[in-house]
Amino acid sequence: MEAARTAIAPKPPSLDALLRLGAADMAAVDALIRRHMDSPVPVIPALAEHLINGSGKRLRPLLTVAAARLAGARDDACLKLAAAVEFIHTATLLHDDVVDSSQLRRGRVAAHLIWGAPSSVLVGDFLFARAFELMVGADSMPALEILARASRVIAEGEVLQLTRAHDMDLTEEIYLDIVRAKTAELFAAAAESGAVSAGAPTERCRALRRYGQDLGLAFQLVDDALDYSGESRELGKNPGDDFREGKATLPLLLAIDRSGPSEAEFWRRTIDRREQADGDFDRVCEIMRQTGALEATLDLAQAYAESAKATLADFDPKGWRPALEELADFVVARRA
Amino acid sequence: MEAARTAIAPKPPSLDALLRLGAADMAAVDALIRRHMDSPVPVIPALAEHLINGSGKRLRPLLTVAAARLAGARDDACLKLAAAVEFIHTATLLHDDVVDSSQLRRGRVAAHLIWGAPSSVLVGDFLFARAFELMVGADSMPALEILARASRVIAEGEVLQLTRAHDMDLTEEIYLDIVRAKTAELFAAAAESGAVSAGAPTERCRALRRYGQDLGLAFQLVDDALDYSGESRELGKNPGDDFREGKATLPLLLAIDRSGPSEAEFWRRTIDRREQADGDFDRVCEIMRQTGALEATLDLAQAYAESAKATLADFDPKGWRPALEELADFVVARRA
Repeated sequence: MEAARTAIAPKPPSLDALLRLGAADMAAVDALIRRHMDSPVPVIPALAEHLINGSGKRLRPLLTVAAARLAGARDDACLKLAAAVEFIHTATLLHDDVVDSSQLRRGRVAAHLIWGAPSSVLVGDFLFARAFELMVGADSMPALEILARASRVIAEGEVLQLTRAHDMDLTEEIYLDIVRAKTAELFAAAAESGAVSAGAPTERCRALRRYGQDLGLAFQLVDDALDYSGESRELGKNPGDDFREGKATLPLLLAIDRSGPSEAEFWRRTIDRREQADGDFDRVCEIMRQTGALEATLDLAQAYAESAKATLADFDPKGWRPALEELADFVVARRA
Repeated sequence: MEAARTAIAPKPPSLDALLRLGAADMAAVDALIRRHMDSPVPVIPALAEHLINGSGKRLRPLLTVAAARLAGARDDACLKLAAAVEFIHTATLLHDDVVDSSQLRRGRVAAHLIWGAPSSVLVGDFLFARAFELMVGADSMPALEILARASRVIAEGEVLQLTRAHDMDLTEEIYLDIVRAKTAELFAAAAESGAVSAGAPTERCRALRRYGQDLGLAFQLVDDALDYSGESRELGKNPGDDFREGKATLPLLLAIDRSGPSEAEFWRRTIDRREQADGDFDRVCEIMRQTGALEATLDLAQAYAESAKATLADFDPKGWRPALEELADFVVARRA
């Protein structure tokens, strides 16, 4: 009986298939990343390496490569775009950590705490510029346009988050607008630019853009849930950070909305006045479980993952497509 | 006699001829700048406007337009590049002011003191991304390559300055390396990208690049001198800032080098230990005059300006060329 049950239990979704298909491409992307983070100014490679060697999963460049190959790319222009996508992402992480005064990133002490905020700001600028040098090397103006636009939308999303982050009256709609801009846009642009550089027809480029956007939304919703799920010790950041910063993410917004008047004073103290004591975070996690706020967040993430998979319906059902379908499931099932 | 002497005295160099020739183009650049600094996120246009409406002279975009027209540009691609150049410049100013904790910029309170450092960092990123969107609109991959490379070199120069800025053993050579990267590179790229977008032959593009680089070196040397010349009340920043920050600029390096052992303790206290008192700045200005440190800095600036003018020898001697020659003289003669 025991053996039969084990045999029937579905294998949890993993990145294995995708990483196997993309192994050679991602090794080449890695080499490009390493070569382009170099500089005669010593602080630059040291700081960049600290972040790039962290526990990052390279999901975004992998998405560029996968979208390009799924769309029929035969040449290697997508590899430069993939490296550019990782540089844009790393630059935004560096600036984010300065903006949020974060302590941990990708399982390491945040760079600004080692090299100072000024170096983090300037090395972020360096990586951002390098990203555009790599894009020029890929020689696709349409791909460049997509990633330039994405970089601008991300910055807008970050500013919007900065100015509205502590607003507990934030609607789910504005929360999703912020997530769409600060996170999902880069996933969308990563996939779309890969497809565009492969010369794929407009319809396919659009489908892959939608896949990336839905995947990014699912990814961020899970990220926000993990910050409260108590299983986030494996995350490369401190669990409870969002709560301590009073950041209006969906789990918190739902918990506030769904908890009764008996909790009103608790929210006013811990979020509005940011007066937090030991045990407050555990109480929030308990409220989240009781009100179903976490479950609702993860359900929404699951819905976006399903939507992402549906956009792939017209692609070849073998090879990259099932790997990308599994990626969508992995993003929702992940624990870190 | 008085009247005759007045008649003979040469008119001080001005931007008038250049501004007259470029009036229509710069009005169009201004409209592009205004349109592209807009965003649905309210903080962004407010912060961008604060800086862009300041007392900036728009030298760099003017240089792009002038180089393009001198090189024979008939279409308006150079206008988008010019707006992009101004956005890159504004983004670096925003980040610089955060990095240096500057108080004043372009005659106004620095943006980070009004909106906070996080907003300055993120709006800088927004403007930087917008610059690349504008470049895509100009549709010249070679121009894009030049400006992407320049953006990277500027960031390297800023990091180099950050890590070496307080090193009083800095050689003149490394000081010039820093200036070449953080200031002259954007002048060089502004001119070169304009020429390249006009489809000018390589020789002419190179000449205009050298013009921009030499102009930028002259510009920064004068800037560094003005910080000590006591005539900098008209500068859009606080005179004496470099001294108070202990920044190793050429006037200071020369003053330290040329002043006798009697001043050694003065430098140790004010620069190494940064213990400054009222009257110290006046004493430095006095040492600068006595040792000729200021004069030597301005002489070097003059030499770069002459070198800049010499690069224009093969261009049409009417119209834009004399206006650019006068710009080189203006940069050295300016008082703010």
